Amino acid sequence: MEEQLIILKLGGSLITDKSKAFTAREKVIARLGREIKSALRVIAEEKTSTKIVIGHGSGSFGHTMAAKYRTQEGIINSKSIPGFPLVSDVAIEINRIVTKNFLKVGLRAVSFSPMSFILTSGQKVKNCFLFPIIQALNLGFIPVIYGDVIFDQKQGFCIFSGEKTLNLLAKNLRNKFKKIRIIYLGETDGVYDKKGKTITKITLKSFNKFEKMIGGSHSTDVTGGMLHKVNESLEMASRYNIDSIIISGLVHGNLKEVLLGKLISGTTITNG
Amino acid sequence: MEEQLIILKLGGSLITDKSKAFTAREKVIARLGREIKSALRVIAEEKTSTKIVIGHGSGSFGHTMAAKYRTQEGIINSKSIPGFPLVSDVAIEINRIVTKNFLKVGLRAVSFSPMSFILTSGQKVKNCFLFPIIQALNLGFIPVIYGDVIFDQKQGFCIFSGEKTLNLLAKNLRNKFKKIRIIYLGETDGVYDKKGKTITKITLKSFNKFEKMIGGSHSTDVTGGMLHKVNESLEMASRYNIDSIIISGLVHGNLKEVLLGKLISGTTITNG
Repeated sequence: MEEQLIILKLGGSLITDKSKAFTAREKVIARLGREIKSALRVIAEEKTSTKIVIGHGSGSFGHTMAAKYRTQEGIINSKSIPGFPLVSDVAIEINRIVTKNFLKVGLRAVSFSPMSFILTSGQKVKNCFLFPIIQALNLGFIPVIYGDVIFDQKQGFCIFSGEKTLNLLAKNLRNKFKKIRIIYLGETDGVYDKKGKTITKITLKSFNKFEKMIGGSHSTDVTGGMLHKVNESLEMASRYNIDSIIISGLVHGNLKEVLLGKLISGTTITNG
Repeated sequence: MEEQLIILKLGGSLITDKSKAFTAREKVIARLGREIKSALRVIAEEKTSTKIVIGHGSGSFGHTMAAKYRTQEGIINSKSIPGFPLVSDVAIEINRIVTKNFLKVGLRAVSFSPMSFILTSGQKVKNCFLFPIIQALNLGFIPVIYGDVIFDQKQGFCIFSGEKTLNLLAKNLRNKFKKIRIIYLGETDGVYDKKGKTITKITLKSFNKFEKMIGGSHSTDVTGGMLHKVNESLEMASRYNIDSIIISGLVHGNLKEVLLGKLISGTTITNG
């Protein structure tokens, strides 16, 4: 069994420019890549077996267009089908920018297309094909997935967030690793309470108290913003006992520190 | 059962510039897109149910780099693993150019990543996941696949040509369609004999006679050039009774004509 799997979630609003559609924050992406590279160097020296898989949202690339065509609802009107290939295209586009920046800093990143390996029915996973990703991890590559549009047996197609694909991986890979850690990088120091202070821990029990204060991350986030992230994390904690930590990807060094297991400011979502 | 499936193979040397690495022939790609669009308009008027799937090679994008790292052989030296993500990247890059040009002319093209849905063992298909592509065809989309690097259980990874992926689809979809036609678009009017004249028909029986005159399409084609194409086509003809026609994609109008079932100059590869 492998030592550790780190699942890295990069928020769409962290890696794209909210104020300009179809604009990536390439400097942020490249810096995060360098922090991963730098952490991997330390990990290699320690000779612990750590595997990393990365997923990202599509931010201002996917959400504006997916909202326009209401792709999440599947085939609902005459624009749904013509809209689908366009939303699919922009989802790949932001992934190309992320992958290319990671390759540039020397990460062994290989991109997998969720549309190609996941099929849903009523937005729930019906079938998936994970052998290639498992093989990629075994060989030390860093699989990179993204928020995508995928085919659905009931409604034609739907949106499948980067979080969902990563959680599907966590669920299916959990018996192959002693430990799985989920790290979510956003634009804030974790989840804020009403006063703007970081909530350090959220459990299923304490969630009711916080739910109302957690809004969507921004209006065009078709996958539901911060609330979606917390909900996905709670499911991982309660069903599979896998903790998530939500931290800021804007603070330099944060990612490297957390990859090396150091404590940094953020919100941990845990089973108890 | 659906009427007809057309499998369109676009040669890597047709869509990329041999003399300049990493340069696509975008004008050729866009024109082919327009011819497909134009043919589909006629087909729609005739109300026959025709589905199209497209695959292309990576030409001067993939082959130079794949040859450098000998990716076809899998993990053979210390450069194999660092090289893999780079070859994967350029395979996607040429696919992006093809897909974007097709979207521009109004084709409902959606791109699938062979690395994500095919796993081989000793270069033979071990597992594959075709539900999403089938669903895409059902909804009238045009799946676009490409020559790719994919994971292999025995040798780590290998190259899987666009032809191979399309033939895998033909094999698995043949019971869903009354008729399957494979059209290969290259730079020549089919396969030439020693005098440079088009061989109109190749069968398993007549192949021995022609084999020696068919060379690789150009030196850096790591998937074997014209001989590979003919071999793949012969397998489809002899095992599944599916004919292929090899025609020139440089002759304007050729693609539209052949899509509409008209006879044009080229080489038919058939069972007899």
